[in-house]
Amino acid sequence: MAQPPSQYTGFLYFVVRSPAPFVAHVQINRPQKLNAFHEAMWLELRDVFRRLSTDPDVRVVVLTGAGDRAFSAGLDIQAASQNPVLQGGGGGNDTDIDAARKAASTRRHISEFQECIGSIEKCEKPVICVLHGISYGLAIDISCCADIRICTRDTRFAVKEVDIGLAADIGTLNRLPKVVGNFSWVKDVCLSARDFGADEALAVGFVSQVHESKPGAVEAAVQVAKFIAAKSPVAVQGTKEILNYSRDHSVEDSMSSQT
Amino acid sequence: MAQPPSQYTGFLYFVVRSPAPFVAHVQINRPQKLNAFHEAMWLELRDVFRRLSTDPDVRVVVLTGAGDRAFSAGLDIQAASQNPVLQGGGGGNDTDIDAARKAASTRRHISEFQECIGSIEKCEKPVICVLHGISYGLAIDISCCADIRICTRDTRFAVKEVDIGLAADIGTLNRLPKVVGNFSWVKDVCLSARDFGADEALAVGFVSQVHESKPGAVEAAVQVAKFIAAKSPVAVQGTKEILNYSRDHSVEDSMSSQT
Amino acid sequence: MAQPPSQYTGFLYFVVRSPAPFVAHVQINRPQKLNAFHEAMWLELRDVFRRLSTDPDVRVVVLTGAGDRAFSAGLDIQAASQNPVLQGGGGGNDTDIDAARKAASTRRHISEFQECIGSIEKCEKPVICVLHGISYGLAIDISCCADIRICTRDTRFAVKEVDIGLAADIGTLNRLPKVVGNFSWVKDVCLSARDFGADEALAVGFVSQVHESKPGAVEAAVQVAKFIAAKSPVAVQGTKEILNYSRDHSVEDSMSSQT
Amino acid sequence: MAQPPSQYTGFLYFVVRSPAPFVAHVQINRPQKLNAFHEAMWLELRDVFRRLSTDPDVRVVVLTGAGDRAFSAGLDIQAASQNPVLQGGGGGNDTDIDAARKAASTRRHISEFQECIGSIEKCEKPVICVLHGISYGLAIDISCCADIRICTRDTRFAVKEVDIGLAADIGTLNRLPKVVGNFSWVKDVCLSARDFGADEALAVGFVSQVHESKPGAVEAAVQVAKFIAAKSPVAVQGTKEILNYSRDHSVEDSMSSQT
Amino acid sequence: MAQPPSQYTGFLYFVVRSPAPFVAHVQINRPQKLNAFHEAMWLELRDVFRRLSTDPDVRVVVLTGAGDRAFSAGLDIQAASQNPVLQGGGGGNDTDIDAARKAASTRRHISEFQECIGSIEKCEKPVICVLHGISYGLAIDISCCADIRICTRDTRFAVKEVDIGLAADIGTLNRLPKVVGNFSWVKDVCLSARDFGADEALAVGFVSQVHESKPGAVEAAVQVAKFIAAKSPVAVQGTKEILNYSRDHSVEDSMSSQT
Amino acid sequence: MAQPPSQYTGFLYFVVRSPAPFVAHVQINRPQKLNAFHEAMWLELRDVFRRLSTDPDVRVVVLTGAGDRAFSAGLDIQAASQNPVLQGGGGGNDTDIDAARKAASTRRHISEFQECIGSIEKCEKPVICVLHGISYGLAIDISCCADIRICTRDTRFAVKEVDIGLAADIGTLNRLPKVVGNFSWVKDVCLSARDFGADEALAVGFVSQVHESKPGAVEAAVQVAKFIAAKSPVAVQGTKEILNYSRDHSVEDSMSSQT
Repeated sequence: MAQPPSQYTGFLYFVVRSPAPFVAHVQINRPQKLNAFHEAMWLELRDVFRRLSTDPDVRVVVLTGAGDRAFSAGLDIQAASQNPVLQGGGGGNDTDIDAARKAASTRRHISEFQECIGSIEKCEKPVICVLHGISYGLAIDISCCADIRICTRDTRFAVKEVDIGLAADIGTLNRLPKVVGNFSWVKDVCLSARDFGADEALAVGFVSQVHESKPGAVEAAVQVAKFIAAKSPVAVQGTKEILNYSRDHSVEDSMSSQT
Repeated sequence: MAQPPSQYTGFLYFVVRSPAPFVAHVQINRPQKLNAFHEAMWLELRDVFRRLSTDPDVRVVVLTGAGDRAFSAGLDIQAASQNPVLQGGGGGNDTDIDAARKAASTRRHISEFQECIGSIEKCEKPVICVLHGISYGLAIDISCCADIRICTRDTRFAVKEVDIGLAADIGTLNRLPKVVGNFSWVKDVCLSARDFGADEALAVGFVSQVHESKPGAVEAAVQVAKFIAAKSPVAVQGTKEILNYSRDHSVEDSMSSQT
Repeated sequence: MAQPPSQYTGFLYFVVRSPAPFVAHVQINRPQKLNAFHEAMWLELRDVFRRLSTDPDVRVVVLTGAGDRAFSAGLDIQAASQNPVLQGGGGGNDTDIDAARKAASTRRHISEFQECIGSIEKCEKPVICVLHGISYGLAIDISCCADIRICTRDTRFAVKEVDIGLAADIGTLNRLPKVVGNFSWVKDVCLSARDFGADEALAVGFVSQVHESKPGAVEAAVQVAKFIAAKSPVAVQGTKEILNYSRDHSVEDSMSSQT
Repeated sequence: MAQPPSQYTGFLYFVVRSPAPFVAHVQINRPQKLNAFHEAMWLELRDVFRRLSTDPDVRVVVLTGAGDRAFSAGLDIQAASQNPVLQGGGGGNDTDIDAARKAASTRRHISEFQECIGSIEKCEKPVICVLHGISYGLAIDISCCADIRICTRDTRFAVKEVDIGLAADIGTLNRLPKVVGNFSWVKDVCLSARDFGADEALAVGFVSQVHESKPGAVEAAVQVAKFIAAKSPVAVQGTKEILNYSRDHSVEDSMSSQT
Repeated sequence: MAQPPSQYTGFLYFVVRSPAPFVAHVQINRPQKLNAFHEAMWLELRDVFRRLSTDPDVRVVVLTGAGDRAFSAGLDIQAASQNPVLQGGGGGNDTDIDAARKAASTRRHISEFQECIGSIEKCEKPVICVLHGISYGLAIDISCCADIRICTRDTRFAVKEVDIGLAADIGTLNRLPKVVGNFSWVKDVCLSARDFGADEALAVGFVSQVHESKPGAVEAAVQVAKFIAAKSPVAVQGTKEILNYSRDHSVEDSMSSQT
Repeated sequence: MAQPPSQYTGFLYFVVRSPAPFVAHVQINRPQKLNAFHEAMWLELRDVFRRLSTDPDVRVVVLTGAGDRAFSAGLDIQAASQNPVLQGGGGGNDTDIDAARKAASTRRHISEFQECIGSIEKCEKPVICVLHGISYGLAIDISCCADIRICTRDTRFAVKEVDIGLAADIGTLNRLPKVVGNFSWVKDVCLSARDFGADEALAVGFVSQVHESKPGAVEAAVQVAKFIAAKSPVAVQGTKEILNYSRDHSVEDSMSSQT
């Protein structure tokens, strides 16, 4: 793969390469911790995608996780446990703090967390997400913000909200019912936090393709990316925007918003 | 199965048992009439689910129909024929009654009917519905309000609105397009009132599992229920609520409602 | 097939027959041009469906394309190239025209184009669309407005927005996310404009049935139409309306709109 | 005043003149019946406003009622009494007709009635309505669709829904809460059907100006019309459209619909 | 005034009389505490309005507060201080309780509080509220749910959310921007919690009438009530429902909900 | 007035002082050009309000314009004329540029412009805007984003969209119908771009107070600010957020978003 463009070099947790003209490949790069996320990472994720969104040399983005074992194990519980605002309840000495002020601070913090992950959806360029191995919790939040999902045969997915008990959802519970048209299945996996595999993800439409190996899946994603990158970028970006708008509006409103 | 808790003993048409800790099993209990519903039944259904909603000893509910032949044959036509407000048109001597007043009464009646069935959706605890045999009309309205749908191989489903010609829908036409992401199929079964079976229901995602026998299906439902009951009840109930809210709101509105 | 009823005889590009009582069969009739559309055709399409909508002798409509090769190749590019308002950008001598006035004219024109195609959705009677052969671009816009989609084994579908680069979408991008509950797939085909075939269309739920031959598919559509035509037309038309309303509104709003 | 342009000459109940360049003056012309409306009139009203909407020689419309006594006395009760679909309840021999079919017919009829009156709102050009004398019922529906309301000192207004008991509202109950930001007053006049005068209408903001005489009020309306007609018609028409869109959408949705 | 009808006799905090045929007069009856509310009172309020809603002998309701000094001083702070769920933050020993469980309990409690006050809005009959003297906090929540507001010259209003700091609003902040069309004023009084008087309330449209004395104001309310009670109750109740629906929906949605 | 806090010193076009504890006073500071805006200014405005939003030493903001003659004359036409993306139509040699690409660039630009002005509304602290002298175009966009509006006797307001003919509105047309509940007046001033004065602004509720002099108006604003600053900042900021949310959502949605 090509070397990273200079404007994407300063990042600690993400590597950005260009495997083909107009295609950027973003890799979550904390494999020794199964690409689990802490706050500095999601702030950096937002920076990466904001730059990609307006970079004239990028038309399509492929998003993967480094290493063999995990796209992402989700929230880094150890780090989060040191971050009081991510705890739903509160610490031990509530009496020392104005509880309402703390609640306001938590809201602002959660809101920023949601916004960071949502930067993938807000990115004007299509994002193709390749999942493999452990893909838990935040991995689902992230991939629901991507446009196209591809995975490997060995992927293990799980929606972890009921296990983690975070004060608020980072997006899975809001987006998954609109990503997959099978409400019985959506509720099953969200209410139970059970694992599910690649075949099930393909059958319900959570992913569009399943590949035997991670290199094969990444190669397939890059092929789709190159195919899309050959189209008019204005039309492609307009299409992404209209499709996301249509998801959240009536047919009439989304049609009138274009004319 | 365990004996019914005392607060659920006074019901004529429903039996409530506890097959496992924190799991309630509600059985529609009018098997000699194929569990067809009349007004007293849906009023009682609402009472049952309101109590379950706030009962601290209940975390998950399994809903089934008694007998071998039917989850429910739907509306008890014979009983409904004696209930003039459920007739779309009106009786023979309209001139004797203020038509507008009758229309208002019908509206209030339909609205209460919808609310009774909707108490399953409003119930704060997840509801797993096990369908078998004849599952017509109101059986679909009811199961669309449940969170997870499981059925037996022999289930015969049908959306009966165009056959019954009720003055207003009790919920299927409003919920089914959001339960199953296949609008061509939804319109096919709703416009034709044709039967469909378990395989078709599974293929389009109306149900999540198909089992060979009713006991097997009920056992599977109880297993899912026990699995969910082992999670944090606050997180589980919050998840149900957010998922239902997300179905009806834009991603932005449902995210902001949590922060 | 029966002869066309007299009120449908004056059309240049559509043939309307009655293959069974209360069933109308509308054929797009420009096979020598692969049923590609120009402006006179979509204006005529609106006329046809407006008449069908209120014709008491019609209860269900079947829509097909004439000839062996295509349901429709989409927009007639040659004709559109002579129609400046369908061009996103503008002609060569912009300085001669008030650009804002031209934009307003384009908006009105696109809005009328959308409305013409939308007359299929607005038609009070269910519309069953049978696709075959080339079914590109406008073919998808049109079939998304139909209620039930059936196709032949040889159908080649493609969403052509990113290839055509029309100033605004005629409805596919707004309706497809609500027709098929698989957002990864919807984005894949919309962002890439790639072809897809009958099996894929069936698997994701874009079509409900696949038939080996065009006559077989048309016959199947007529059978469904006859089945529906035997039901209460008031209930059938009310069901179509509620289902479309439900697609665009919350469960609560669509339920209250009926009472 | 100038002679009517030829395309507006065939109307029975409306006179269209051009008191100034780019200004059309539409007069409801059934003064001997206090400009009360029957069905042929509202169908004609729609024709008039559809033509004005696209007429390049018209930029602003002034709407008045002929004669000294009334802008409009509302629905022509005598004519309506011969039109069974406008009756909420139904005629004497309901048993002879399929009640549901009749309900469907009534719905379609009311819907068309609403659409005819709504053609004033849909008209792309601003409409300035001058009310005088009796302005009851339909006069309010009509003027709520206009953009700017002016009246004479002697105007007597009344919202007549609770007196007439029509099967459905023609728009006042839907628009008035968004036209006047005083919900206590809106409910007072709508629930009581009481008369109110020009001063009250001005105080609550239902009208923008009150004039002593009808000629004075018409002259003031024409002055406003001429003032607006001197602005860029594209900007004026865009402004009308955005303001109406904003009324019905969130700030965010209405802002994004413009970009 | 007439004696209370028997079904309204069991209440501790409300007196219901019938000053005229079809008119009910509900009096908040805790004058020694300035009609301040505690939980038992708002539960009782809901019972009263639910009965009035379906009572065929009641067509219009007048709501007042007993005594000379206050319509209501709002929430009974002393009682609320003993009710931990109404405290935004939490008590002293948070570590003893599952904070998330407590949050869920608070939500359910607030939700029930909102629903009790909202029963005035849900009541199918118009409600005319007469405010006098101290009308703080909950007095505004309550009167925003009424349809028509009348007050005495000596009324002192205040929106107390920023003073009380309750965990959630009981409705004023949600309804006031739709009751009064002056957002600068709404924000002024809500952000500052400052007092305002009858003249200011009339000028901005919060009340429709100001009277010199409480008896005069009540008499005026009864006169309006009698006037409305003489109209068709079906039309009056339909009008209330449509107006409230219109407040919360687009013109198009509220029009289509009627047809 | 106090000296500006150090974090607000680097700005070219805005001066930030602290006239009282927890109160910030922001002054638009380009009096020699009547405080007209160019792009660098609105970008700076966003920076100012983003810092104020999270500054723990600020609870309320007062916004004024420097100099005697104008709060703001609006868009700096001279500067805008050199900024091609703010032109609705396009430059002279359209054939040299990809028109669609240019349209996309314009959209992004307008969207950023809207977001900059909207930072006043997004600011978590209440903003009190004091208008004086010339207050045209962008002055209205800006003040509609503020929470409370106060003006001097000599203020001349005008909504300039139809005069400027900008490609898209920066917010006035979207917010004004929700700020002032008098749609006839809103349309009058927006469609005509006519001037209006302080008395008219007060009568329709666009401003809450009118003062004889600018120092008097600023002093009054600071008094209101100090009064609000003495309340619980958490409750005040929550109130601002709920009121803005309520403006754009149904009562039910805004109530449920709080529980």
